Amino acid sequence: MIAVAFSGTKLDGRRARGDRTRAAILQRAIEIASTNGLEGLTMGRLAGDLGSSKSNLGVLFGDKEALQLAVVDAAAQRFVEIVVTPAHVEQSALGCLRALCDGWYTYLESKIFPGGCFIYATAHEYRARPGKIRDRVLSYFDLWKRTLGAQVRTGLQNGEIRLETNARETVWKLVAYQNAAHLAILLDDPTWLDQSRQLTRAHIEALAIRAQGAEPERL
Amino acid sequence: MIAVAFSGTKLDGRRARGDRTRAAILQRAIEIASTNGLEGLTMGRLAGDLGSSKSNLGVLFGDKEALQLAVVDAAAQRFVEIVVTPAHVEQSALGCLRALCDGWYTYLESKIFPGGCFIYATAHEYRARPGKIRDRVLSYFDLWKRTLGAQVRTGLQNGEIRLETNARETVWKLVAYQNAAHLAILLDDPTWLDQSRQLTRAHIEALAIRAQGAEPERL
Repeated sequence: MIAVAFSGTKLDGRRARGDRTRAAILQRAIEIASTNGLEGLTMGRLAGDLGSSKSNLGVLFGDKEALQLAVVDAAAQRFVEIVVTPAHVEQSALGCLRALCDGWYTYLESKIFPGGCFIYATAHEYRARPGKIRDRVLSYFDLWKRTLGAQVRTGLQNGEIRLETNARETVWKLVAYQNAAHLAILLDDPTWLDQSRQLTRAHIEALAIRAQGAEPERL
Repeated sequence: MIAVAFSGTKLDGRRARGDRTRAAILQRAIEIASTNGLEGLTMGRLAGDLGSSKSNLGVLFGDKEALQLAVVDAAAQRFVEIVVTPAHVEQSALGCLRALCDGWYTYLESKIFPGGCFIYATAHEYRARPGKIRDRVLSYFDLWKRTLGAQVRTGLQNGEIRLETNARETVWKLVAYQNAAHLAILLDDPTWLDQSRQLTRAHIEALAIRAQGAEPERL
């Protein structure tokens, strides 16, 4: 039993080291893909950057496509940790919608990924290239749309959001403003990011049902 | 003189053939870049597709970057011919703004470029990659924003557009809806493109100063 437990500890130690190595490689891979595109991420380029070898990366990740999928998953997981999970502590649907959107703009502004929002970046890169990566990216983009849409629909059911609100149109507007803010990286002018953030806040405030005579919150 | 004129004709004939060859190569290059990205456009890939050689392409275009810049210019020129020039026959600023935006959605829907709007596609691809291509793409994106903005400002001066209109915010909304429609290619569902088009039309109609009591046009 002791031997088994010891052997288990040894295996766990190895696995933990393997996980740390994998996480460090994915971190560098995300940085490269964020500015150069996921197609620009080759095993050779990544190995060179890390002072490793292509065969080592091959053992850890398999082929280029498997590495690319692992990078998309790792970036999406970070996005969920940074933006999605914290927003869900909000009690109201409208509060959660606000936190999801504010969180998204803070995440963009903080340059967590140097090339902007990883999901929008990859969504654009693979929009017209069928395959496993496009399918994976599409599922994350769709999940983001559904996450926003769920709060709008709950807010409608709860009586927090005006009944005439079209949930689908609202989600598309929020996505459009985010998409434009992501592209604002090209313009190298943070006032365009702010323009999107202001349009988003104003749109969310306009959804709210307010007590008669109450002033809308200042933006 | 006859010899000179003849020699001139011969040269013009050669130039015309050269121009046609160049245009045909650029057409194929645009198609590749539209779906695979401009970075995915290599001399080797293009030569293989055309049954030509890399050295032939080198003679016509120079290096890869010169080819990429020529592709961006050719795509922008087509965009101007298809969308920008026809819209400028409109007499009113608001009519021109409507025609620019409607023209853009028709151009997207017609799949003139298989991967959507070439300017948005390339703007996203190079948003975080400094260099000549980013500068060129930025200048075209900026020109498009200024083209839309000029009509909003003229409409304000002419008294066609409500005085409280913020031209910068209006341009950013129109750009955001277009950008989202371009990304809708990923979703493979034309109703999202229509959502952007409807939001655009509604926003433009809401800018108009109307005769008292006049009903806004049905969208």
